[in-house]
Amino acid sequence: MFEIIDLINVMSRLPSIGKKSASRLAYYFIKNKDFSNDFIKILDNVIKNIKPCEICGKFTTNNHCEICSDLTRNKTILCIVEDQKDMQAIEETGVFQGYYHILSGAINPLEGINPDKLRIKELNKRLQTSSFKEIFIATNPTVEGEATFLYLQNIILDSFKEIKISRIATGIPMGGSLEYADRYTLSKAIQQKQYL
Amino acid sequence: MFEIIDLINVMSRLPSIGKKSASRLAYYFIKNKDFSNDFIKILDNVIKNIKPCEICGKFTTNNHCEICSDLTRNKTILCIVEDQKDMQAIEETGVFQGYYHILSGAINPLEGINPDKLRIKELNKRLQTSSFKEIFIATNPTVEGEATFLYLQNIILDSFKEIKISRIATGIPMGGSLEYADRYTLSKAIQQKQYL
Repeated sequence: MFEIIDLINVMSRLPSIGKKSASRLAYYFIKNKDFSNDFIKILDNVIKNIKPCEICGKFTTNNHCEICSDLTRNKTILCIVEDQKDMQAIEETGVFQGYYHILSGAINPLEGINPDKLRIKELNKRLQTSSFKEIFIATNPTVEGEATFLYLQNIILDSFKEIKISRIATGIPMGGSLEYADRYTLSKAIQQKQYL
Repeated sequence: MFEIIDLINVMSRLPSIGKKSASRLAYYFIKNKDFSNDFIKILDNVIKNIKPCEICGKFTTNNHCEICSDLTRNKTILCIVEDQKDMQAIEETGVFQGYYHILSGAINPLEGINPDKLRIKELNKRLQTSSFKEIFIATNPTVEGEATFLYLQNIILDSFKEIKISRIATGIPMGGSLEYADRYTLSKAIQQKQYL
């Protein structure tokens, strides 16, 4: 038999949920049993049925996700992202019309994430049979994301010479100010100045 | 069949979980299926078995909670709190050795919480057969907590004349500074100055 403390402990293992939040959530669950039963039903159903899309890696309840199944998108451009959340952020802008490939992470040797832990084998296979003319690499501009970009760039330059490579732009965020930008971002923004 | 979006929607109904947090948590659940299954098992078990202690109202898997069952505590003093979380906060200080009574809220007419929605009937019954010499009212120093304090004070003065009433102290928090205390707290701290 489990006690409240077990519930608080398991919840505090969730990302960015501390002991206090876990306790607040646990009491909310206990006090709202109908809500909790709905929540259990949904969570149980989702984790039982969800699996990565066989093409891009996006979580879906079908074999192919709704983006890979959408034949009206631009078949010449593939956007590579670290994570489904990045893909969703790009989708929300509405400015990208191509297809996606989710790596499920970025290269990070310190945490044991080597290229073979990412969905790069799948990418290779996909590029061999696809019609993509451009690979738009949208890994994050972090140490790990940059390392992943360089690794992917090498693979593509080696094996898919005819494919154009592009990288997501870095610079001062819209609405941000030069004064408060970190030196590295500012340097990049100057080096990558746009000619009009 | 439920989709990720259903999971995100149900999670964003949790207190202080916004859309972004709900989405981050949902992906964590999906990516960590073993964890999610453990979590479901614990949550399901806890909400099935937990109920309010018949004496004090604390959530417990037994008829009587571990505090009410502990006969070594001080039988002369009863601490009244709004919520189990307040009780737990007091327990963690280790300076209170008596028993507790949880009201399950505070009087708040705007939200429809009248005295009959709180565990005051149970308190009345409990005081009629108990040996408490002091009632320590530790409702929060908020409008609702103060209203609840005044209401309880009247009941006790009316029906249990021999019982002493005490109220949790208000003032500048330890480590706080007068400069940053709000005017109301500072006024209270001055009015309730302690003679040495």
